[in-house]
Amino acid sequence: MELDNLENWRKSHYANEITPKSDGKKVVLMGWMREIRLHGKLAFIVLADRSGDCQITIKEEENSKFFEKIRSLNREDVIAVKGTVKKTKQTVRGVEVLLSDFKLLNRAQTPLPLDVAEKTPALFDTRLDNRVLDLRKPKVLVIFKIRGEILRAAREYFAKNNFMEIETPKIIATATEGGAELFPVSYFDKAAFLRQSPQLYKELMTACFEKVFEIGPIFRAEPSETTRHIAEVTQMDIEIGFATEEDTWEVFDDLIPYIYSSVKKNCADELKILSADLKVPKAPFKRVSYTEVLEALSKKGLKLKWGEDTPPHGEKLITEIYKGPVIVYGYPSELKPFYIAIHEKDSKISHGFDLIMEGLEIASGGRRIHDPKIYESRLKAKGLNPDNFKEITKFYHLGMPPHSGWAIGVDRLVQVICGLQNVREAVLFPRDVKRLTP
Amino acid sequence: MELDNLENWRKSHYANEITPKSDGKKVVLMGWMREIRLHGKLAFIVLADRSGDCQITIKEEENSKFFEKIRSLNREDVIAVKGTVKKTKQTVRGVEVLLSDFKLLNRAQTPLPLDVAEKTPALFDTRLDNRVLDLRKPKVLVIFKIRGEILRAAREYFAKNNFMEIETPKIIATATEGGAELFPVSYFDKAAFLRQSPQLYKELMTACFEKVFEIGPIFRAEPSETTRHIAEVTQMDIEIGFATEEDTWEVFDDLIPYIYSSVKKNCADELKILSADLKVPKAPFKRVSYTEVLEALSKKGLKLKWGEDTPPHGEKLITEIYKGPVIVYGYPSELKPFYIAIHEKDSKISHGFDLIMEGLEIASGGRRIHDPKIYESRLKAKGLNPDNFKEITKFYHLGMPPHSGWAIGVDRLVQVICGLQNVREAVLFPRDVKRLTP
Repeated sequence: MELDNLENWRKSHYANEITPKSDGKKVVLMGWMREIRLHGKLAFIVLADRSGDCQITIKEEENSKFFEKIRSLNREDVIAVKGTVKKTKQTVRGVEVLLSDFKLLNRAQTPLPLDVAEKTPALFDTRLDNRVLDLRKPKVLVIFKIRGEILRAAREYFAKNNFMEIETPKIIATATEGGAELFPVSYFDKAAFLRQSPQLYKELMTACFEKVFEIGPIFRAEPSETTRHIAEVTQMDIEIGFATEEDTWEVFDDLIPYIYSSVKKNCADELKILSADLKVPKAPFKRVSYTEVLEALSKKGLKLKWGEDTPPHGEKLITEIYKGPVIVYGYPSELKPFYIAIHEKDSKISHGFDLIMEGLEIASGGRRIHDPKIYESRLKAKGLNPDNFKEITKFYHLGMPPHSGWAIGVDRLVQVICGLQNVREAVLFPRDVKRLTP
Repeated sequence: MELDNLENWRKSHYANEITPKSDGKKVVLMGWMREIRLHGKLAFIVLADRSGDCQITIKEEENSKFFEKIRSLNREDVIAVKGTVKKTKQTVRGVEVLLSDFKLLNRAQTPLPLDVAEKTPALFDTRLDNRVLDLRKPKVLVIFKIRGEILRAAREYFAKNNFMEIETPKIIATATEGGAELFPVSYFDKAAFLRQSPQLYKELMTACFEKVFEIGPIFRAEPSETTRHIAEVTQMDIEIGFATEEDTWEVFDDLIPYIYSSVKKNCADELKILSADLKVPKAPFKRVSYTEVLEALSKKGLKLKWGEDTPPHGEKLITEIYKGPVIVYGYPSELKPFYIAIHEKDSKISHGFDLIMEGLEIASGGRRIHDPKIYESRLKAKGLNPDNFKEITKFYHLGMPPHSGWAIGVDRLVQVICGLQNVREAVLFPRDVKRLTP
């Protein structure tokens, strides 16, 4: 059967815009044929698009030209309909569209590899292999509407608060945190890497732009496979000159509730589809030292030695103990990278911190080093070769201000806000040790 | 000389916020020591920050504690001052700050490798080697304020107009446009590439999200060195389902004036610093066929055979001929990639188009293919192996809508709006065949 051309047809409405109020209106809808029921000389189609769906009612006698075509439709075929809206008690949404003209724009294969109506649940790998079908499911699609709103709200916050947007290189010559977990790139005739973080560059930007943010991709070659890690991640970074770590905690206190409130306000329907009852966290967030956390965990039966990193189930316990978001500060210097400042009075303690929400480390940051002598000595103390960093360290002799910053894992934040089990659910086409396609 | 700690000092104002109206106010300023003049027991400092600068006046008798430190200051040392604002006729800005307390936060090397006051112009390579100093120059810094505003305005437009934000993979298994100019990545034990464009993925997204945008990095391994090309680029992509190329031209007509107006309104001071008299282009933009363009160029002395691509000086001529932005459509199919639809009645002509502004190709796009049979036949016609694309083509059997879209080169748009000679001026740390650092 021949496909029809779009010609001068254009969508007049999204499916969910058709309500009993539109009674009598002529409309053009386009989308996917989700369901069809045939009753002799009558056909009922559920036409779905990204907004929801709408029933199309087709009488053979008025549509004899294309009734055969309609009868032959398979699930997820791409269709366009012209018709008149009619109030009705026969459909859940109280409305149907009486067909007057029809186009078959494209065919979908049959049977489909995945059930969009999700009567049969699919394996996550099957879902990813057929991601565009999977993303037509309302419960999956809304995750990305919410993700978009999280990004929009965050950028709006940064613009309102005088952060300058920066875009720093993704291809770098120097291993940011020194070492493993980097993807090598052949850069013309040179060896290079994909950045693990914009860390060293965003720090430099405080020496001219003072207060900056960047939202962009970072890459981590972690060969392990967990529900918490992927290889290509979106990270939201800030860095502020003339500021200590406490100043950046105030940004958490402002920004996180700002994002939550925006999502609650602008994605109310989407949250309903996810059955998510989003609570805007109360600021200021609790601030607890690493040492205090160890004691509290110990009382709950998790004994960690001072200097040990918190395991994933420890992060879950932290949320149980403190409720709401917690900023954990005063981490051992050993656990933090070279660019985190160490305490003036006790070199075992760093100015690094984490933000833990819903049992997940959502953000990580610290006060940085601005004195070039200390910067180079920390490189050496961490066993790194200062020669490999000289393209960065040279800038430390050009007037670096004291500065502090953090990075939020955007995918994890989406995971927490949408209540997802696996961070891959928050990403369109996740990348990990196993999966490089599509 | 010891450096001072920031302690509880915080910036109360940016330098340009100090005006005669602030007379009598106590303020805390922080920034870089741009200039110093000593007159016996008096010192005058120009303190500069990202907003501009302000004169600090220091009387030795009231500041004997740190007058020695102040006398020793070098250009671009990082300083913090407390003091009282005083109206004065002695300075250009009509104001000075009388010092009461002082901190030296960091030293800059002396002599500096670059003159921030720019009395001596520097080579572009020297500027990039010392980029943070270079970015302190008002004329350079404002480019990035304007760049930020361009990005902000574009995203605001997309949010208001129902585009869903997508973030598609940067590491890909399949060469998007088939072939050269790709950076290879070692992806665990697999061979992969950095994406040249989000093209194939954004097209897929019309099959679930219908109307999408993405602003993100793309990578082109072009070994040539011109003022128009860099290896790491920011691209602004849209793709719209149930739409033809004409629909996407209307987005140009809306979006470009929206961006220009936002920049004019929100970056008036920055445009003044660049001496840029920005004119908002009038929409709808001229729409001219490739064949008509060839004739017009020929009249201006540039003879091109039908089928030839327009050389850079041809794009300059196009702007001269038509003034303002021009959409050139009806390009030869030979010149366009496989995913651009070809004309129903003449396979030599494609549904691809370019947007030319100020003598530069700013955007490129087209109507796409949604019929899987045609998609595969175009791959073959372009000499590509359909097997290499099967991870993408499989989605074409799941109900692809007719769709169209375009991509704007963000760096070039910044170049045009700011009136820059070289696209590298629009990027913080440009990457090209020569330069991989810092």
